Amino acid sequence: MSRFVLPLSLCLLSQFAIADDQLLDAKSLAKAAELRDSALQKNEATNLLESLTTEIGPRMAGSPANAKAVAWAQEKFKALGYDKVYLQPVTHPVWQRGHEQAEILSPFPQKLHITALGGSVGTDGKTLDAQIVEFASLDALKAAPENSLNGKIAFINKRMERHKDGSGYGPVVAGRGAGAVEAAKKGALAVIIRSVGTDSNRLPHTGMMRYDDAVKKIPAAALSVPDADLLEHMLKRGKPVTLRLDIAAGLTGTYTSYNVIGEIRGREKPDEVVVIGGHLDSWDLGTGAVDDGAGVSITMAAGAVIGQMKQAPRRTIRVVAFANEEQGLYGGKAYAEAHKNNVADHQIGAESDFGAGRIYSFGAGVDDKAWPVIEQIGSVLSPLGIVTEKGKGSAGPDVGPISALGMPWAELQQDGTDYFDLHHTANDTFDKVDPKALDQQVAAYAAFTYLAAESKMDFGTAPKVEEKK
Amino acid sequence: MSRFVLPLSLCLLSQFAIADDQLLDAKSLAKAAELRDSALQKNEATNLLESLTTEIGPRMAGSPANAKAVAWAQEKFKALGYDKVYLQPVTHPVWQRGHEQAEILSPFPQKLHITALGGSVGTDGKTLDAQIVEFASLDALKAAPENSLNGKIAFINKRMERHKDGSGYGPVVAGRGAGAVEAAKKGALAVIIRSVGTDSNRLPHTGMMRYDDAVKKIPAAALSVPDADLLEHMLKRGKPVTLRLDIAAGLTGTYTSYNVIGEIRGREKPDEVVVIGGHLDSWDLGTGAVDDGAGVSITMAAGAVIGQMKQAPRRTIRVVAFANEEQGLYGGKAYAEAHKNNVADHQIGAESDFGAGRIYSFGAGVDDKAWPVIEQIGSVLSPLGIVTEKGKGSAGPDVGPISALGMPWAELQQDGTDYFDLHHTANDTFDKVDPKALDQQVAAYAAFTYLAAESKMDFGTAPKVEEKK
Repeated sequence: MSRFVLPLSLCLLSQFAIADDQLLDAKSLAKAAELRDSALQKNEATNLLESLTTEIGPRMAGSPANAKAVAWAQEKFKALGYDKVYLQPVTHPVWQRGHEQAEILSPFPQKLHITALGGSVGTDGKTLDAQIVEFASLDALKAAPENSLNGKIAFINKRMERHKDGSGYGPVVAGRGAGAVEAAKKGALAVIIRSVGTDSNRLPHTGMMRYDDAVKKIPAAALSVPDADLLEHMLKRGKPVTLRLDIAAGLTGTYTSYNVIGEIRGREKPDEVVVIGGHLDSWDLGTGAVDDGAGVSITMAAGAVIGQMKQAPRRTIRVVAFANEEQGLYGGKAYAEAHKNNVADHQIGAESDFGAGRIYSFGAGVDDKAWPVIEQIGSVLSPLGIVTEKGKGSAGPDVGPISALGMPWAELQQDGTDYFDLHHTANDTFDKVDPKALDQQVAAYAAFTYLAAESKMDFGTAPKVEEKK
Repeated sequence: MSRFVLPLSLCLLSQFAIADDQLLDAKSLAKAAELRDSALQKNEATNLLESLTTEIGPRMAGSPANAKAVAWAQEKFKALGYDKVYLQPVTHPVWQRGHEQAEILSPFPQKLHITALGGSVGTDGKTLDAQIVEFASLDALKAAPENSLNGKIAFINKRMERHKDGSGYGPVVAGRGAGAVEAAKKGALAVIIRSVGTDSNRLPHTGMMRYDDAVKKIPAAALSVPDADLLEHMLKRGKPVTLRLDIAAGLTGTYTSYNVIGEIRGREKPDEVVVIGGHLDSWDLGTGAVDDGAGVSITMAAGAVIGQMKQAPRRTIRVVAFANEEQGLYGGKAYAEAHKNNVADHQIGAESDFGAGRIYSFGAGVDDKAWPVIEQIGSVLSPLGIVTEKGKGSAGPDVGPISALGMPWAELQQDGTDYFDLHHTANDTFDKVDPKALDQQVAAYAAFTYLAAESKMDFGTAPKVEEKK
């Protein structure tokens, strides 16, 4: 190297040093780069995910398998060398799925593939036979005249668009959440929706719906995408189409599960924490590989590689496997409630809960004065194909409630192009995950988390929080 | 056009005319090209397939829906203007599927997605709990010691390869057919197989298996590909894995269905026939769009466009919607039996039963003297992206039995790259079909069928017949 050329990292340092002496130093950046490169070779997240999906499998909140998953996460945190492993109680209602069947009775008898939406009631131990009335969207259903659905089943037939950032989800998921209430207001006996998904498999997508205590609770179910297509073809002939539903489902009580937490204790500022994590619960249909076994595995593995360093970073790293995200962010809310009096200890938080696709974008919600540190972190993420983008992103679902109280957040945005092919279906299984993509994410989370924990910068207060998912 | 240049079709004619005056004339070739080009615009096969999958849906042999499909085909042949529409009885056993469930009991309880193989018995109204023993192939199972599977469930875990021509099917399907007999010989209580399929969806592939009356009949079922992967992951841990099977299935009697036949009467040689067709039955899991609603629709539409010409071709065109191909070529065998004394009237036959992918290759089993006519037909198919290949191909499944008696055959080979993603699963639905690919196939079948029927060439005797599928 020529004497007249400074190493790039020193150039960056000196450039930023003019602005702020709280910037990361070259040694820290170099260590983060090493950490990143070694994480790319470890395969640890894949091993964790294989274990979770094989040995535990589906782990819906309130199920016996969910309790096994809590024990699994505790054991894995310990085996990975975390300094401290503990549980944080999370109490939530328990919803159970029984059988679920649907068939067209007339004019063209065929069985349809459906699944009850999370939270739905069943058909009262009987079959429910009624004519279908189709709506292009939730808004179209809302616009239907009062009593126009008396004795009928509403069918919300809105197709989801495929986008890398998952932006097709929002416009469609409203029908899943509010379809039952809006249909019941018009007199419907039940509501069925085209699955909120981008695939064309005969595997319906479940997901949470909600009731309004002032409105009659009616069953809500999703048709697989090809079944929605089939029903559309039947309906376009203009003759009445009668559907039979037979669903057993409902709430059965309350249950206390746990956020499972592993920590790497900070060497200088142990009370200041950087929080990363995913959610441990899954839906019951698949083995929860991409939602959100991947997120749990990526963040557990990322914390572990930092824990294996000779010297821990200045701040504490806290990895949280959140309880019951799927049915209402119960784990995230319990976390926020438990920490509402020490929000300021939370320097920054990030959640991985958008599948198993590679990270391509990095954003953060931090004080403006801290943005140069985000840029520094971004420079270490850049070789992984990750672009740092100011003003983009939002807090993940389970770190949303504490971010709403002021915790700064980062988002390591994953490529979600295929995410909604699998999301909330039986097809959410380990074989869908690319181990190399998991490694890339562990590398990114390890570098980000290490640098955020090593930084002297106070990330401030989240300037704006949007709840996501 | 310069006086000194002959039209290309006349050039071809004169070139072949030296060899044989039974070659097709330029006018016939030009008419076939017109027919081909007009068929590309008609969308008729897509309309038929949409109707069959929407109004009838799954139509397993022996089911009420199969009888509806017979009526459907009769009506459609009539509506399409066929000169003669008639039925040919086909008697076959009836197999019924009841419920089917599987779950790992230990060491890692999870539900698995299975489907009983066609012809299988059930678990006798009880659940069957037993340890799984894995085999890499049917041959490995055959090599197991006597009595080594007493009280166990055999698992044949052979993965299917993806190939355009479907050549991955043969090496794997042997385990589906013979797995139960070979496992029972070693003392097994049941056999499960990795689905014979190239997809990674949680939708198992059914398909026919067979028993040997000298060997105990044990239940046989297929796991979806991701479920086979999951079981493989469990087994590689080296601990005993116990499976619970609960299957209701079995033979319930015999039934008489029908080959549904539509004819366009030949103007000069009405007793000489060109046979095309597909099979009308499907498995019960999907709506039988690619297997074989597509084949039925393509060939019905191809015959129809010929029937709409001002002048019928010299020979009769016979389109057959065969009964019960899936469970043992019953329709094809009945056809051969009915025509065993007039095989020589059958000039040539071709079946479409390999999905809905574009045709890319054209071959035939005819007398050598007739090959130049096959080449002429190939020249009209060529603009559709179809290559004529001597010495390749085989008779389709339902035209196999009559070809075995001597009927020459042609094969219009379809691109089957994705066929075994869908084959025999619930995912075999209309949305998977590309209407433009169907049009291409109708165009090819129309041109081939017209020219074979217009030809003066005697196609001779099938030189060699291999049964396919």
